[in-house]
Amino acid sequence: MKNLTSMLDIQKADTSKIDQVDFNNLVFGQVFTDHMFECDYKNGSWQTPVIKPYGNLSMPPSARVFHYGQAVFEGMKAYKDQDDQIWLFRPEENFNRINKSSERLAIPEFPKEYFFEGLETLLKMDSAWIQKGFGNSLYIRPFVMATEAGVSASPAGEYKFMIICSPAQAYYSGEVRVKFSEKFSRAADGGVGYAKAAGNYGAQFYPTNLAKEEGFQQIVWTDASTHEYLEEAGTMNVFFRIGDKLVTAPTSDRILDGVTRKSVITLAEDHHIDVEVRRVSVQEILDAAKSGELKEMFGSGTATVINPILGFGFKGEKYELPKIEDSYAKFFKDTLMKIQYNEAEDKFGWRHQVK
Amino acid sequence: MKNLTSMLDIQKADTSKIDQVDFNNLVFGQVFTDHMFECDYKNGSWQTPVIKPYGNLSMPPSARVFHYGQAVFEGMKAYKDQDDQIWLFRPEENFNRINKSSERLAIPEFPKEYFFEGLETLLKMDSAWIQKGFGNSLYIRPFVMATEAGVSASPAGEYKFMIICSPAQAYYSGEVRVKFSEKFSRAADGGVGYAKAAGNYGAQFYPTNLAKEEGFQQIVWTDASTHEYLEEAGTMNVFFRIGDKLVTAPTSDRILDGVTRKSVITLAEDHHIDVEVRRVSVQEILDAAKSGELKEMFGSGTATVINPILGFGFKGEKYELPKIEDSYAKFFKDTLMKIQYNEAEDKFGWRHQVK
Repeated sequence: MKNLTSMLDIQKADTSKIDQVDFNNLVFGQVFTDHMFECDYKNGSWQTPVIKPYGNLSMPPSARVFHYGQAVFEGMKAYKDQDDQIWLFRPEENFNRINKSSERLAIPEFPKEYFFEGLETLLKMDSAWIQKGFGNSLYIRPFVMATEAGVSASPAGEYKFMIICSPAQAYYSGEVRVKFSEKFSRAADGGVGYAKAAGNYGAQFYPTNLAKEEGFQQIVWTDASTHEYLEEAGTMNVFFRIGDKLVTAPTSDRILDGVTRKSVITLAEDHHIDVEVRRVSVQEILDAAKSGELKEMFGSGTATVINPILGFGFKGEKYELPKIEDSYAKFFKDTLMKIQYNEAEDKFGWRHQVK
Repeated sequence: MKNLTSMLDIQKADTSKIDQVDFNNLVFGQVFTDHMFECDYKNGSWQTPVIKPYGNLSMPPSARVFHYGQAVFEGMKAYKDQDDQIWLFRPEENFNRINKSSERLAIPEFPKEYFFEGLETLLKMDSAWIQKGFGNSLYIRPFVMATEAGVSASPAGEYKFMIICSPAQAYYSGEVRVKFSEKFSRAADGGVGYAKAAGNYGAQFYPTNLAKEEGFQQIVWTDASTHEYLEEAGTMNVFFRIGDKLVTAPTSDRILDGVTRKSVITLAEDHHIDVEVRRVSVQEILDAAKSGELKEMFGSGTATVINPILGFGFKGEKYELPKIEDSYAKFFKDTLMKIQYNEAEDKFGWRHQVK
């Protein structure tokens, strides 16, 4: 493996924008740090990675990403503990997944050493942007996109891999109620649902707008063939608590293999919470809601960590979940965050220190 | 309706690049004309449309299109007849479809007068780029993309509608054989398959690469639920000739409502060719190929017009179609192109002159 420290081309910003930022009133994903990571692919290989001042890109109007959505992304967070140490949470998972997504979108694999060296150097340069305090974090957005000029509907020969970072407080404000999808779909068998492909997200905006008009904040997608089985929400995997049992859908070629999702499953098993990974039918949840057995629903995802879902709607009926004392959602959120912020033992080796 | 001529902001290029172009050796979608059309959406409305020299865009790395594929496009062509008159083919269809695609992607509707005034002015300014001669054309690419900065997974508040133009010869060179998809899918029921959404295309590149390794140029997609019914190819709708009967799949929320497709159906009916718009099963085509009843297959699309398909593969078997004298593909291609190039009567009012 090459020594990357010397290979990384670093261009420092002359001044920092940090004093202009109100860290107590952050809108998610709006403000970016002083630097960004950029690595171009051309002539069959990834070129010298660069860290440079955050700023606009110059792109030809025929760049493939504008026309054919050949782009994938990841979502990660960096945390700062009380001793000013910087931590990532299971970053290998994100690295592996972006390459898995890239493969499905015919994008060349990105080298592991570039990813980690670039990311960690960037975090150290912009470390002042990672605010201390439980709930504060730096949201990290790695992404790859096809930059080659030309509107031929074929894979590009040129790409740009970037990492940009945005300081974040909690992702969701307010209460979340979801609609179980009856008509619209997120992914097909044999499609790109399992990838964090750009087009998977834009395709959800219109159905989600319609759901919002009915008073819901998100959609829980159902399988495209029958709409009988619950899959995932827009930016979250979804868990159901029936009695004291936790149930969630298996990952598939339609469902994203969420890092938070798999961490919840591991924590549940570790704490002797009965967890079943299997198909979850709409009917089962309706029946459980009516009988009172449905105790909780929550979403899991990097941006949101764990997001309690207060109710759901299906075919014009709305269901409210009971308020609960010993909430699983709260337990998983606290447990995960304590690990992420270096406030609890890291039994599974999930924390990764940025040194 | 406002007088747009005065509203359009026109910035002419100082010099033309046209002398640098070898019109006899064009690669599809690689070279663009001297000008481009651009109209920004912000603060809830489309701003003054601009025609300006073709050139790079300055985009924030957090622009929504890079992350969430909130983008749609169209494909059109302009033709020049022997008297130097410029023609479009059914442009209202493309205009209506881009707004239909936009609606599904939660992109604001684009005004009709902006579209036509912008497009026609652009074509007149760059008319030297439309080469005379049967088969030559100017490929027109209208597209809309979310430009707003910020990685929140929600519809953007800012968009850019553009039209760029590229001189074209025939889209396909060489022979085309297709693979019937057995595992991968293009679209889900309730998804965005009917829209010309950017993400629909990038998602096809990887399966198409695999098919290419097996010796096929394109995939004919099958329904995601069963893979029993044939839908459309990457950039074409698909027709089958069984005996003297023409068969094609109906449009749906998975299948693009192709302008060339519907023109072929109209021409077939007009020429008393028996045409059936109905589900086409893989088994039916396999049986017809084996019995010798499958006479032809061809694709239809703006870029390709009509593209004969010489053979297909399914589950490891390859089938070659017979050579045929009275080819439907040739008939439709000639008939369509003569209408497009103002060399035949325009019985259905499909031609639109740019004056």
